[in-house]
Amino acid sequence: MQLSSNTLHEQRDRIYDAIIVGGGPGGLSAGLYLQRYHLSSLILDKGKARSFWIQELHNYLGLPPDTSGRTLLHQGKQHYLSLNGDWLNSYVESVVDEGDLFAVQVKVGRNKSIYPIFRSKYLIAASGIIDRLPPLVDMQNVYDYAGYNLHVCMVCDGYEMTDKKCGFFAGSEASIREMVFNLSWFTPYITLFTHGLFEVSDDLRRTLQEYGYPLVETPIQRLLGQNHLMTGVELVDGSTIELETGLISMGSRYHNTYLDGLNLEQKEGYLTTDRMGRTSHPRIFAIGDLKVGLNQAIVAAGDGALAATQIWRDIRQATPSRRWLENQQIPA
Amino acid sequence: MQLSSNTLHEQRDRIYDAIIVGGGPGGLSAGLYLQRYHLSSLILDKGKARSFWIQELHNYLGLPPDTSGRTLLHQGKQHYLSLNGDWLNSYVESVVDEGDLFAVQVKVGRNKSIYPIFRSKYLIAASGIIDRLPPLVDMQNVYDYAGYNLHVCMVCDGYEMTDKKCGFFAGSEASIREMVFNLSWFTPYITLFTHGLFEVSDDLRRTLQEYGYPLVETPIQRLLGQNHLMTGVELVDGSTIELETGLISMGSRYHNTYLDGLNLEQKEGYLTTDRMGRTSHPRIFAIGDLKVGLNQAIVAAGDGALAATQIWRDIRQATPSRRWLENQQIPA
Repeated sequence: MQLSSNTLHEQRDRIYDAIIVGGGPGGLSAGLYLQRYHLSSLILDKGKARSFWIQELHNYLGLPPDTSGRTLLHQGKQHYLSLNGDWLNSYVESVVDEGDLFAVQVKVGRNKSIYPIFRSKYLIAASGIIDRLPPLVDMQNVYDYAGYNLHVCMVCDGYEMTDKKCGFFAGSEASIREMVFNLSWFTPYITLFTHGLFEVSDDLRRTLQEYGYPLVETPIQRLLGQNHLMTGVELVDGSTIELETGLISMGSRYHNTYLDGLNLEQKEGYLTTDRMGRTSHPRIFAIGDLKVGLNQAIVAAGDGALAATQIWRDIRQATPSRRWLENQQIPA
Repeated sequence: MQLSSNTLHEQRDRIYDAIIVGGGPGGLSAGLYLQRYHLSSLILDKGKARSFWIQELHNYLGLPPDTSGRTLLHQGKQHYLSLNGDWLNSYVESVVDEGDLFAVQVKVGRNKSIYPIFRSKYLIAASGIIDRLPPLVDMQNVYDYAGYNLHVCMVCDGYEMTDKKCGFFAGSEASIREMVFNLSWFTPYITLFTHGLFEVSDDLRRTLQEYGYPLVETPIQRLLGQNHLMTGVELVDGSTIELETGLISMGSRYHNTYLDGLNLEQKEGYLTTDRMGRTSHPRIFAIGDLKVGLNQAIVAAGDGALAATQIWRDIRQATPSRRWLENQQIPA
């Protein structure tokens, strides 16, 4: 059920089989599987998953290509609730390993916040990443276009950028080196914007000239466009640059600080997991964008199925098989 | 485009970036991603993927729980064709590694069959498994109920069997030992049927008695029921046993004989792959039920995204980045 400040006290003494941090595609898929294994679960969701911003999911098998991320999340949440999964809009503050159980403290409500603690046998970290966006004075201006023709994921939306005039909004020299030459697979008509945030080395500057990608270092005043269609950029000096699409590559941060005290193994910032999503802690799983792989909704959804199934196997193996008592014959 | 005997000659000299064997959830998802990476692909599908039989997909995130496997496959195929992917109804006879390319020979048409050869740089094996069904005289009788309340997958449909009188149709003593005690997680009201196909050891016989699971060794005459709802079993001696649901666990075989000549590494019958689905051959990927994991549509769909993305990375890295020629400045 959907829990709220008023109803959550009913669940306070309950021990869940699994608490899932994050109600995106990974967490929702894990929740569906857990509930169908007759395991109890609670999804803690801070709202606005990365997939919430996707206007059209073009590559999620089974959904028409104009389905929005919001529709996927809504459908998944209704499905999960129909299986009696619990859901609470909340922000996870901390997780304490108490030995057999985890104590998960959350913040509920922006005003008059309360800080209840929930307990579970297993924890699934499905809280993903948060994209960094260009730090404009009027941030609404970015949200007007993000997820429409201003993209944050080349794997998702490279196809939509095919041979279009593309603004590449970089957060560092490394992000340029890593991404811009791959972006040219989809379009070579790339203009780079540093927003004045960092210096570009002479070496890279020369390479960009060779490839014909203009480099704009003057900070951006605002994005231009209307009806969610970005048509260009206005710089602080008043000049404008025409664009047909854009890719933001200013980095992202993991939403995983609640795991800080648990000493989980990491590799290059990702949580280390086995093929079922189990981290170095036998009862903590990490799925979706927190682990090495590919930050894609359909991959996270598959991950959720794997993690939930492994948790079921663990719990099932520790539980005696049920007998058909009426038929039972105890041998002499 | 949908190829047919009449149109396929137009594609005969084309070299695809990837040929995908199998148009189930894994192959379709790989196809969507490949086409969106501007890579050319051909799906070779023999028809009637395992998921074709699923009447209701209860655990595929994003789809209403009463969506049929057929609907998923249809939606996916339309999506793939809309991205200009090629599709041919055909059975893959053999794959020959010619060095840089694979030559894939297929059989097209049941009558007046033709045997064209297609070539590609990469191969994705997504042909999955085929379930063994109880070998009744009237096999249609099995198909009347399979996918309704006669199930082949406990992970998928255990929930639907909860506390119901369940017939467990076993193919071997091993299948009983492996599955029946896990099945009791969902229901303890289990009657086992050997269909007279194999002997049961005294040891297992005693264990089943202890658990109260009746063992029926008389062969089955037919399944009873109507409107796709199985209500029991009639044995060859004329007696009947009432059931509310059933699970067939008679094993399955991999649909992968076309890979026989390629000496791919295997482990316990599964193809060995890395996390992106790459087999021991650098240009052959295996996804879905052919690799170790979990035989679930959503997992196969995630696998398809991973394999397609790795193929894109390979090809992209071997291809020079594109330049914006009008802007290009060659340094002195």
